[in-house]
Amino acid sequence: MNAQRLEAIRDRLHKLRLHALLITFLPHIRYLTGFSGTNGLCLILPRKQFFLTDGRYTTQAREEVRGFQILIAKKSLGEEAKKRGVLPSGARIGFEVEHMNVAELQNWKTLYPRMRFVPTRTVVEALCAVKDESEIDLIRRAVSISDDVFRKILDVLRPGISEMDVAAEIIYLHRKLGAEADAFEPIVASGFRGALPHARATGKSIKRGEMVTLDFGCRYRGYHSDLTRTVAVGKPTDRARRMYRIVREAQQRAVDSARSGMAAKDLDAVARKHITRAGFGRWFPHSLGHGLGIQVHEAPRVSASSKDVLKSGNVITIEPGVYVPSVGGVRIEDDVVIRNGFCEILNAASKELVVL
Amino acid sequence: MNAQRLEAIRDRLHKLRLHALLITFLPHIRYLTGFSGTNGLCLILPRKQFFLTDGRYTTQAREEVRGFQILIAKKSLGEEAKKRGVLPSGARIGFEVEHMNVAELQNWKTLYPRMRFVPTRTVVEALCAVKDESEIDLIRRAVSISDDVFRKILDVLRPGISEMDVAAEIIYLHRKLGAEADAFEPIVASGFRGALPHARATGKSIKRGEMVTLDFGCRYRGYHSDLTRTVAVGKPTDRARRMYRIVREAQQRAVDSARSGMAAKDLDAVARKHITRAGFGRWFPHSLGHGLGIQVHEAPRVSASSKDVLKSGNVITIEPGVYVPSVGGVRIEDDVVIRNGFCEILNAASKELVVL
Repeated sequence: MNAQRLEAIRDRLHKLRLHALLITFLPHIRYLTGFSGTNGLCLILPRKQFFLTDGRYTTQAREEVRGFQILIAKKSLGEEAKKRGVLPSGARIGFEVEHMNVAELQNWKTLYPRMRFVPTRTVVEALCAVKDESEIDLIRRAVSISDDVFRKILDVLRPGISEMDVAAEIIYLHRKLGAEADAFEPIVASGFRGALPHARATGKSIKRGEMVTLDFGCRYRGYHSDLTRTVAVGKPTDRARRMYRIVREAQQRAVDSARSGMAAKDLDAVARKHITRAGFGRWFPHSLGHGLGIQVHEAPRVSASSKDVLKSGNVITIEPGVYVPSVGGVRIEDDVVIRNGFCEILNAASKELVVL
Repeated sequence: MNAQRLEAIRDRLHKLRLHALLITFLPHIRYLTGFSGTNGLCLILPRKQFFLTDGRYTTQAREEVRGFQILIAKKSLGEEAKKRGVLPSGARIGFEVEHMNVAELQNWKTLYPRMRFVPTRTVVEALCAVKDESEIDLIRRAVSISDDVFRKILDVLRPGISEMDVAAEIIYLHRKLGAEADAFEPIVASGFRGALPHARATGKSIKRGEMVTLDFGCRYRGYHSDLTRTVAVGKPTDRARRMYRIVREAQQRAVDSARSGMAAKDLDAVARKHITRAGFGRWFPHSLGHGLGIQVHEAPRVSASSKDVLKSGNVITIEPGVYVPSVGGVRIEDDVVIRNGFCEILNAASKELVVL
């Protein structure tokens, strides 16, 4: 698997006439080497590949890294690479333009004044976007943990509990059920706060009759889940029911349409048209979804302006929402695998409006 | 407070002959504006200051942002800034070289072909490194939450519990006690795994007689805590006791020496010399500590190669450790405020070896 990924990268290096690819972005390092620590560097050359880290990670690197020669740096990782002479002099070295900051690039150029540093885009991302079945199984496992958390959270959601206490339960349950980490800070937005699409949980107590949007996910062996449901705590208003119905229909239409070969922007349009026809178009201010995998947001883009075409093996979220200021909001999100002719929903949580 | 920070930045802009400073780094945005969301941009000009975000954050920006004109972007934040004409044409615009990636800078240059983008370093960092008493109070609050968590965790640490379950309790307790988030993934390293300075918690069960290193922290209203203790679950070996004693002595010597005006590298040397004399020098592979505040690692640097001089109002960690491969490790970490002539320890947790 590792070997296939390296081969695909080497094909790209060859096409881009590069002598090496420099990778410092941690999710990519984990994808390629298995290393899960927080300081590392990969150098991929036509016939060799090196992984560098610092002394804190000596043992962990030996345990985790497969298929790379491991070098432990005394000073900076770049200086160690130079000292070891792993790069041919005067080489053209590709770097990841979206993942290296300007200061790092300046440091590399100072360290290697005779090298040519060539910006690359999406070399590793293009590989990551198309998952093999073993990767989909890891995402399925992450999603299944979040599904279990959602079921258990329904027992906790009662009038009087604060949003922050609900978030604490989500985080706790994720770990207890085997997640490495949360994918992001859980969103718990109740009542009027549901109008904030990315609301953090606050000390606000949940009141009877309020809708509550829960958006949460976890990481399992490097792969993420990302699940949203809006539930009613006590009897919801007719307006809330109507908002829910429209979002649910829009979400279902998108799920029914998603398949390989479809332009991602056309999938966004399926949901957006339905919401717009119902008169809520201006209250759906974000994209329909995003790729999901070693990052919570990765390729393909699933928005009105996306140029991506969905491919078999993409894993994406489908998550339309409507948010009416001072009133509240509804969002429903599934994680799906794009297949030939259909998409496969990875989560099990029902989309019927749950009234607690 | 906000106004003072802006004034200090404008002084620097003037000295650097810049017409504006562009800030995209989220902790700096929160420091300057109060905004705690995940997409934003500040532009600070000599007489005006703008905050830009996207439609998801309209309500949140109005609630949180003070002292900045708020602009909600339809497309990218950069395009919105251009559309609104907030930057004078041909301006020299400073950007944060350590916080902007190469792709972002390319986008800005494409968007504003006539502007001059000038790399800046540490403009905001230099302000953040020296805390006022209101900031120190927020760190104190974060540290106090972690102190309470440590006390409660001692009731949970028993032979048979897994490292991951201990981490889950830490995370849960942080939230229940009012933290916004964990500062980082808690480290729970028991027995031989204590030899990994940055070990993640694993499914390993804690055994009687093992030392367990706990390193954890939280965020409270944007400010962080970072606390480490190594405790013994059951009677420790003589070797473990000796390692503990040496680290504790080294840590205490550093705490006793820390004061404003001292070179940070000299503080590192105080602890390092003690550990080296005891024969463990090669097993102390990391710096003595780091600045702590709106980031978990910020200025000043507290390492053997640091060029920083400690200032009154700096908040730093003091955390020597020794790690013997296949045997185990000990680390002890306090969070302290640098004062004139001494340092003030913010945490209350004892440094006596706790034997459970």
